[in-house]
Amino acid sequence: MSQLLRVQNFTVSSDGIAAGAHQSFESPFGLDHGDLLAWAGATASWPNRTEPGGSRGLDDYFARDFAHNIGAEIMGRNKFGPQRGPWADHEWLGWWGDEPPFHTPVFVMTHYERPSFTLGDTTFHFVGGEPTAVLEQAKEAADGKDVRLGGGVTTVKEFLDADLVDTLHVVVSPVTFGSGLRLWESPDELLDRFHLDVVPSPSGVTHHLFWRK
Amino acid sequence: MSQLLRVQNFTVSSDGIAAGAHQSFESPFGLDHGDLLAWAGATASWPNRTEPGGSRGLDDYFARDFAHNIGAEIMGRNKFGPQRGPWADHEWLGWWGDEPPFHTPVFVMTHYERPSFTLGDTTFHFVGGEPTAVLEQAKEAADGKDVRLGGGVTTVKEFLDADLVDTLHVVVSPVTFGSGLRLWESPDELLDRFHLDVVPSPSGVTHHLFWRK
Repeated sequence: MSQLLRVQNFTVSSDGIAAGAHQSFESPFGLDHGDLLAWAGATASWPNRTEPGGSRGLDDYFARDFAHNIGAEIMGRNKFGPQRGPWADHEWLGWWGDEPPFHTPVFVMTHYERPSFTLGDTTFHFVGGEPTAVLEQAKEAADGKDVRLGGGVTTVKEFLDADLVDTLHVVVSPVTFGSGLRLWESPDELLDRFHLDVVPSPSGVTHHLFWRK
Repeated sequence: MSQLLRVQNFTVSSDGIAAGAHQSFESPFGLDHGDLLAWAGATASWPNRTEPGGSRGLDDYFARDFAHNIGAEIMGRNKFGPQRGPWADHEWLGWWGDEPPFHTPVFVMTHYERPSFTLGDTTFHFVGGEPTAVLEQAKEAADGKDVRLGGGVTTVKEFLDADLVDTLHVVVSPVTFGSGLRLWESPDELLDRFHLDVVPSPSGVTHHLFWRK
């Protein structure tokens, strides 16, 4: 089985917006992202769950598939942190505390060099270059497993434009933002290249499952 | 996280029938089971797939979740083979050829003793006793992971009656059999003890996801 590049649990508003225009340390997504991720937070498999319980229905299948057969992640620099331009220092280690939820090598795309570091069982590498070259490195590090394309939205669009994405799971949440960074005007934009299953969840979100034609 | 007992990918007809009354070597399910499992056979993750391709939509999530975090399986003797009564010999090694798709210890429930054997990376143990005692052995063998309750239908009902099942994924296929071994008259029978998500798939089957209240 060949290695896939997979987008998973990527959540957008009903108007296709994944992040606000004005990211900051206080607001990693530049908008009230709590609403967007409520579907995942309600599941038994949500990695940040601190109390027992949670649903084990449809949404839970997607929450627990997050790490399944994934050997590496690629993310954009804006998912990693709010800084822009050259690294002022190397003190910022991501948003995720001492135990980042990736548990694999993570390739952070940036034009500015920075040494790799390890936190818990996640190692962050900082890489420049085209999507094709970054994907090649990530596949090699994934050791036969698939690679997750973690976002943000600009990075997902960049890899879609380069036609490197094999499967996408996009969750459409019943909130509306009006403005921000947009994944799509409509999921139909991808139908020339992908099959699509549209699966409404009893929780109110609608799972969109794309795979290559 | 506690260990769960999970029923997965268990497929019944629209009238709730999982197997025919007359199992034989030629007809392991006692009816034309090909129709029942067509949904799984069409997925990319179907373990018996011999050609590349297959869907990566909703049904594929369930197909690939089959082995996810599973450390042991419990099955009834009728899932293991068509024999009844004492073992005439030990030549029957199951329906699955040299590489059974379980890859874990499997506990076959039978009143008749038989030595364990290993085929590929699956070891079959033959155990008597009540469901509670069998589950205890399987959980110990699963080494912290969940236990799959593999069927057949009589075994699933026995564990449901003993209130030992934590989650059930039952696939209702759009075929009708009229007679045979029945899981339920209606999924509503389980609603006193379980939450239920009902998820129609674009493929035509309807996934029923139960988890304990």
